[in-house]
Amino acid sequence: MSNIKERKAMVETVAQKMGKSVFNENVAPKVTTPRMEYQKESSKVVSLQDAIRLSGLKDGMTISFHHHFRGGDKVVNMVVDELAKMGFKNLHVAASSLQDVHKPLIEHIKNGVITKISTSGLRGELANEISKGLMDEPVVFRSHGGRGSAIATGELHIDVAFLGAPSSDPLGNACGYSRSENAKSICGSLGYALPDAQYADKVVIITDDLVAYPNTPNSISERNVDFVVVVDSVGDSSKIASGAIRDTKNPRDILLAQLAAKVIINSGYFKDGFSIQTGSGGASLAAVKFIKDEMIKQNIKASFALGGITSHMVQLHQEGLIERLIDVQSFDKVAAESIKTDPMHKEVSANEYASADECGSATHYLDMVILSALEVDVNFNVNVLVGSDGIIRGAIGGHPDTAADSALSIIVCPLLRGRIPCVVDEVTTLITPGSSIDVVVTEYGIAVNPRRPEIAQRLKEAGLKIVDIKELKEKADKMIGKAAPLPFKDKVVGVVMNRDGSVLDVIKNIG
Amino acid sequence: MSNIKERKAMVETVAQKMGKSVFNENVAPKVTTPRMEYQKESSKVVSLQDAIRLSGLKDGMTISFHHHFRGGDKVVNMVVDELAKMGFKNLHVAASSLQDVHKPLIEHIKNGVITKISTSGLRGELANEISKGLMDEPVVFRSHGGRGSAIATGELHIDVAFLGAPSSDPLGNACGYSRSENAKSICGSLGYALPDAQYADKVVIITDDLVAYPNTPNSISERNVDFVVVVDSVGDSSKIASGAIRDTKNPRDILLAQLAAKVIINSGYFKDGFSIQTGSGGASLAAVKFIKDEMIKQNIKASFALGGITSHMVQLHQEGLIERLIDVQSFDKVAAESIKTDPMHKEVSANEYASADECGSATHYLDMVILSALEVDVNFNVNVLVGSDGIIRGAIGGHPDTAADSALSIIVCPLLRGRIPCVVDEVTTLITPGSSIDVVVTEYGIAVNPRRPEIAQRLKEAGLKIVDIKELKEKADKMIGKAAPLPFKDKVVGVVMNRDGSVLDVIKNIG
Repeated sequence: MSNIKERKAMVETVAQKMGKSVFNENVAPKVTTPRMEYQKESSKVVSLQDAIRLSGLKDGMTISFHHHFRGGDKVVNMVVDELAKMGFKNLHVAASSLQDVHKPLIEHIKNGVITKISTSGLRGELANEISKGLMDEPVVFRSHGGRGSAIATGELHIDVAFLGAPSSDPLGNACGYSRSENAKSICGSLGYALPDAQYADKVVIITDDLVAYPNTPNSISERNVDFVVVVDSVGDSSKIASGAIRDTKNPRDILLAQLAAKVIINSGYFKDGFSIQTGSGGASLAAVKFIKDEMIKQNIKASFALGGITSHMVQLHQEGLIERLIDVQSFDKVAAESIKTDPMHKEVSANEYASADECGSATHYLDMVILSALEVDVNFNVNVLVGSDGIIRGAIGGHPDTAADSALSIIVCPLLRGRIPCVVDEVTTLITPGSSIDVVVTEYGIAVNPRRPEIAQRLKEAGLKIVDIKELKEKADKMIGKAAPLPFKDKVVGVVMNRDGSVLDVIKNIG
Repeated sequence: MSNIKERKAMVETVAQKMGKSVFNENVAPKVTTPRMEYQKESSKVVSLQDAIRLSGLKDGMTISFHHHFRGGDKVVNMVVDELAKMGFKNLHVAASSLQDVHKPLIEHIKNGVITKISTSGLRGELANEISKGLMDEPVVFRSHGGRGSAIATGELHIDVAFLGAPSSDPLGNACGYSRSENAKSICGSLGYALPDAQYADKVVIITDDLVAYPNTPNSISERNVDFVVVVDSVGDSSKIASGAIRDTKNPRDILLAQLAAKVIINSGYFKDGFSIQTGSGGASLAAVKFIKDEMIKQNIKASFALGGITSHMVQLHQEGLIERLIDVQSFDKVAAESIKTDPMHKEVSANEYASADECGSATHYLDMVILSALEVDVNFNVNVLVGSDGIIRGAIGGHPDTAADSALSIIVCPLLRGRIPCVVDEVTTLITPGSSIDVVVTEYGIAVNPRRPEIAQRLKEAGLKIVDIKELKEKADKMIGKAAPLPFKDKVVGVVMNRDGSVLDVIKNIG
């Protein structure tokens, strides 16, 4: 046996040479508490106020939120109310999107608690007020992929992320669903929260179901979480299908859906192994049904469906027609339940979904996307954010990301909505550049971007009615007359960022 | 409608104020190739030589490997052979572990291709040669958690990681199994490869089954992958249960297993919701059977089993006795298949498993662990790395990580192995400090660390034979006589790092 003294000296010599210390067994005493108790003692679980205090949040900093509960979200209002009570001022709210339900932010803006907003969209009273000039700083609008990129590059630095989660264990392993008997809410994918979880300085999980460790499989790892706050409710799951999502019974939408399906089927991209994303518009969802029939007829299977995943896509997947679902946002409860139970239904972050900077983001592997529009102009530019009355009433979402990256992007929109033309001379606000748009489907004909003559050729050969987009615009003009210019004023209320970080357009206030 | 010129000027003014450029639609032209073809064109798939060349690897840099194929690994030899052919010198091999199969490294060390090794363990001829002084630089030994920490903190910086994967798509979404018809190999969890994938400067996936995008669910995301190399075989899956893992029929091992089970059952930690890890020793695996019987009898369920997951644990999980499996390393094919199909069988990285720096690593939530030992000394120090002949013949693994973090650590070892005593005055090499070890089970009685009098008390009350560890040592001495000191020489051939980055011990060469 060695001489202990000699051995110690040897270890010390080597450690010194390596620039390391020698092990000291008193540094980390053993914890002997049974783990069910230890979890409670040593957990990150604190009150919302303590989480805010301990996070180091200061006036002027950036806080972030996700919108997976859409109209049912309770986290934004809850947290901002608390911040207001605590006396915070001059905060930047960087949400993945904001909805009608966030109307209370108006007061917080007026009181100086919030002075800056970044978001993908705005709706309802808050959007109305901001359109009229409520804020001094313009709202910065980004696409979902653009937000992911901006967070990853540091352009959008988040100081504290407040992320609602339907389940979390005391360490912060969190999910968009819960496997416990006490589950109160479900939103499915937490894709838009994942960049925040990865890159924010501090991450606070807000949950309405604290479950025992380990809450696996988990979306957010405890490695990224600083605090866990337990509340009564993070969101009303019955509203995750609200807002943009609805099944259509409108005969015009069904006609548009049929046309869109015909475009896809005859585009040259409808082959075994194709990939597809459909937006959340009624016609876009209805098109899935027609595509499905043709898939069965031609014995064609899709490799994956991407994006906001709906029950329609889940059904096709379960029937074996779509191999994988790649889900950044579950568009209804069926999709949310599916991501909980089906390993082939994969959750991805906004970056893995649609970052322009990353060659591997899923949008780069997308054959076709069906999208909607508020307006499309004669240069194929699309607006999905600002109404033809100049009021903000929508969200950029993944529109420009998927349009730019997919091999075939199809806009489905009626020529007119009531007395409002959808095909116009120049979009009110530029959201998706015309260079990204390949086909525009209206009930008066299909316009193909002149950059894609091969598509026009294929559709003509299939007997579809191809028209010049200017003709569509003229038809709209004839039917309702030329619209008067909008009474925009001089205050910049919004800036639309392109997904590459450049400025696409500016939104001015309206009277 | 707005005046286009005026609108452009407005966008320019705002962009300038923000320090941003104005969107230019010619920057990123649309890709219109169907995605099944586009995947092939634009993928990261290159030859091994090109991957090495393009990675920017230079003499003196650090390359890394995982050991999930254990004795069946083909990646280390393949890559190092190629590096030797390409003329590289002076490389640092940072493997999660090295095995008998890596004998060819001896030549590469002699030729100066490899001049430094970091690993959790060494076995076979390579271990033998290194023990005798083959290398000028000492091998740096770290535990699995210690390696994860060292990689995360940057102490162990990896320039290029070469990570074998049984499936990958052209972008590098990779798994420890394959869902394709062409699957050639399976290793299950890629837990030890995940720190490398996250932190290495460049990551090369080496796969024997290139599948179509998206290879979801995936362990490694394409976000972290630079190159994908397709080879005939990354490993022989029949050998993943080789090495340390075996089912025992040895009556002494079965006796030890029974005793270990009794210790657990009477320790005070055997309660509903407990958590457990068992090592890969025969007795440790056999103990699971006895614990299972008692779980059924007492209607107790475990919240999770951790670590190297075996078919034994999978079975208990499938029978509803263990809620979750947390798997850093699949110890056999049954476990590897289970992680592929069962979402409740969760893969974790070495950091999430056992990092000392991270409060949320799973070992911190572990009630009990059963571990083996080559030697344990009268101060409860344990050696699992160096044989009593002074030759390196094992691996640190998660031994010190789980022993330190668990509430109850149990060493199971016979008093003698043939003519070799396992309970000694002073361990040949210190791997797990005595302060981390609570109970030592031998066939001649159970010794409890004096730091844990409450455990001794509970075991005595259960009628178990508690002995002083010094008595065990004296009994061994009486049976075979005192061993002569080992003929260590003066060259330092290994340094054992503690999981906190301090130096635990030093290994000298032997004649």
